[in-house]
Amino acid sequence: MAGDERILENLTLAVVGATGAVGTEFLRIIEKRHPELRNLKLLASKRSAGKKLTVNGVELVVEETTADSFRGVDIAFISVSTAVSLELAPIAVAAGAVVIDDSSAFRMQPDVPLVVPEVNGPDVEAHQGIIAIPNCSTTPLVMVAHPLGQANPIRRIVADTYQSVSGAGGAAMTELREQSLTLLKGGAVKPEAQPQQIGFNVIPHIDAFLDNGYTWEEQKMIDESRKILHSPEIAVSATCVRVPVYVSHSVALHIELDHPMSTAEAREILSQMPGLQVMDDPSNKIYPMPWNVAGQDDVFVGRIRQDASHPNGLAMWVVSDNLRKGAALNSIQIAEELVARDCLKPRVRG
Amino acid sequence: MAGDERILENLTLAVVGATGAVGTEFLRIIEKRHPELRNLKLLASKRSAGKKLTVNGVELVVEETTADSFRGVDIAFISVSTAVSLELAPIAVAAGAVVIDDSSAFRMQPDVPLVVPEVNGPDVEAHQGIIAIPNCSTTPLVMVAHPLGQANPIRRIVADTYQSVSGAGGAAMTELREQSLTLLKGGAVKPEAQPQQIGFNVIPHIDAFLDNGYTWEEQKMIDESRKILHSPEIAVSATCVRVPVYVSHSVALHIELDHPMSTAEAREILSQMPGLQVMDDPSNKIYPMPWNVAGQDDVFVGRIRQDASHPNGLAMWVVSDNLRKGAALNSIQIAEELVARDCLKPRVRG
Repeated sequence: MAGDERILENLTLAVVGATGAVGTEFLRIIEKRHPELRNLKLLASKRSAGKKLTVNGVELVVEETTADSFRGVDIAFISVSTAVSLELAPIAVAAGAVVIDDSSAFRMQPDVPLVVPEVNGPDVEAHQGIIAIPNCSTTPLVMVAHPLGQANPIRRIVADTYQSVSGAGGAAMTELREQSLTLLKGGAVKPEAQPQQIGFNVIPHIDAFLDNGYTWEEQKMIDESRKILHSPEIAVSATCVRVPVYVSHSVALHIELDHPMSTAEAREILSQMPGLQVMDDPSNKIYPMPWNVAGQDDVFVGRIRQDASHPNGLAMWVVSDNLRKGAALNSIQIAEELVARDCLKPRVRG
Repeated sequence: MAGDERILENLTLAVVGATGAVGTEFLRIIEKRHPELRNLKLLASKRSAGKKLTVNGVELVVEETTADSFRGVDIAFISVSTAVSLELAPIAVAAGAVVIDDSSAFRMQPDVPLVVPEVNGPDVEAHQGIIAIPNCSTTPLVMVAHPLGQANPIRRIVADTYQSVSGAGGAAMTELREQSLTLLKGGAVKPEAQPQQIGFNVIPHIDAFLDNGYTWEEQKMIDESRKILHSPEIAVSATCVRVPVYVSHSVALHIELDHPMSTAEAREILSQMPGLQVMDDPSNKIYPMPWNVAGQDDVFVGRIRQDASHPNGLAMWVVSDNLRKGAALNSIQIAEELVARDCLKPRVRG
C-alpha cells in the first residue's frame, strides 16, 4: 500500500456483489462521499460478469469473482449470500485484503468486530482481517438504543419490524412489482423470491426458523444488538415481518430503561446522536416512513412517547434505508473508520 | 315484537351503513348464518339510497336513514362514522331498537357493554339500549389474551399492529388500488382517504394523535382491552400501523403473565378457545397472514414462542379478518347472544 493510508482514495477497493441491490447503492454512495476514488474493482457472479458500470466518471467492467480477484486489494466489501461470503472472505483475507462483510457468516465470531461506527467504532481496531456489518434491521435499533443506554442503562428491548423486500435482494423487489401488477389485474401469483406471496400481504417469516420458535432474522437482532452494545445482559425480543414496501425498514420499538426518562430528555439525547435524526411532530403529520426515508443516509426516529405499559419505558418508531445505513453506507463508514484509525493491517492479538 | 324472541329470524333488523365495507360483509354473513332471515332493513346515507341489494334471495332497496327509519326495528346494527353513530344511535334507541354499534362513540361509556361474545358474552345483559363492539384491532387481541389470562393472570401486553386499509373503509381500499397502479407506472400520488401515501408504504398513524403521543387507535386498544377483560390493572402498550393490505389486521403480540407458561400449555389453551384457531407449524411455512385469513370467521394465532426477553413472556402473531370478527361477525354474534339470553329489552338498572 503506497501513500497516505488515511485517505480512502489512495486504496484499492473491491466490491463483491457490485450489481446487487446493496452493491448498486454502494456505488452511488461512493460517488457522493469519495468522488476522487479511482481504484475500484467491481466483482460479481459469472452471470453478471461483463456488465459495464460508470463510477466517478470511469467506465468499469464487472469481473467474475475468482481466487485471483483480491490481489492488490486493500479492502474488499462483500455483499452476497452467507454461503458465498463464507467461501470468498477467507480467500480475500489470505490475499491481504481487509474484508468488510454484509452477510451473517461471521458476525457472531468472537474475533470478528461487528460494527456500527457511530456506536462502537473503536471495535474495528481488534479486527483480524474480517469486520462484519450488522443485519439491516439491527443497525437502526442500536443507533437508537446506544445513546439512550449511555444515559440510562437499557434493561429490555421489544422490537417488531416492518421490513422492505430489498432486504431480500433485487429479485424480491422485482417479485413485489410483478405480483402487485398481477394481483391488481385479478390474477393469481406464486411466490419465488419470498417464502409467501408478498403483494398486498405481510409475512411473519424472514430467514429460517429456529427450534426456539424465533426466526434467524429475529435471533440476529437479539444477538447482534447485544454484541454491538457490549451488553449481553439486555433482554431482547423481536418479531420480524416482511411488508410490501421496496426500500426502508421500520421498527416499532419498546425500550425499558433502568429508571424513568422523560420524552424531552430522550428527544434531546437522540437529537445529539450522529447519523440519527429526530423526525417527530405528529400533530403536523411528521414522522418517518419508508416513503420519506428511502434514499437518505440517516436513521430516523419519531413517535417518541412514554410507554404506557412500563414506568421506565419509552416507545418509538424508527425507520432507515436498509440499503444505505443498513448496509452499503455502514460498510463504507467502517472503511473510513479503519483508515482514520490507521488499522488496516490486523494487530497482533493480545 | 311477535313470536319467539329466541330466534333472530323472527326479529326486524336494520343495517345502517349497509353499502359500506363492513355492511357488505355483514350481509354475506347473514346469508350464511341466518338464511331464513327476511325482515331486514338496509339503511345508508342519502348518496347510497336507492341502491338494490339481494339478501337471502330477496331484493332490498337501500333507504336513506331518517328519524323514522327505526320504527318497528328490534335491533339496529350501526357501522358508520363515530359522528354519525352519535347522532343516530339515540334515535334508534328512542324508537325502541337495541343498537349494536361499530364506532368508538359509546365504547367506553360505563353503561354501554363492550362485547366480544366468546370473551365477555354475559356483559350484554347489562345493556341500556346500546351495545358497542370493539375496535377491529382490539378484538383479536382479547380473543387471545382472555383464555391465557384465565389460566395465568396477564400483567402486561405489548401489541404492534399491521392493519389493512379496509379498517378505514371502502374509499381507502379504492385508494390503495389506485395508488398502487399509479406508482407501478412511475406516477406520483396524493393521499386522500389516508393521512399519507399508503401504496408501497407503511403509516404509523391511525386516527388522531393524543397529548400522550399515542394515537386514538392505540389508546382504544389499551382502554378497550382492559374493559372487555375486566382487568383495568393490565399494562398495555400498542403501536398501530397501516400497511398496504386490503383485508385482515395482523398483530405482533408480547404478553407477560404472572408466572411462566410453556408454549405447549399456551397452544393447548388457545386451541380450546371458541372462535380462535391455532395455525402454527412454521417448519412447514404455516402461520396466519392477511392473505390466508381474509374471508374467514375465526381469529388465527401462530408463531407461539417463549418471549426471549421475559421469563413469564409469550410472543405470538395474530391475524383476523377485520371486517368479519373485527366488525360484522362480532356484531351478529352479539345479536345472537342477546336473543339467546332473552335480554333484548333493557333491564332496569340495579
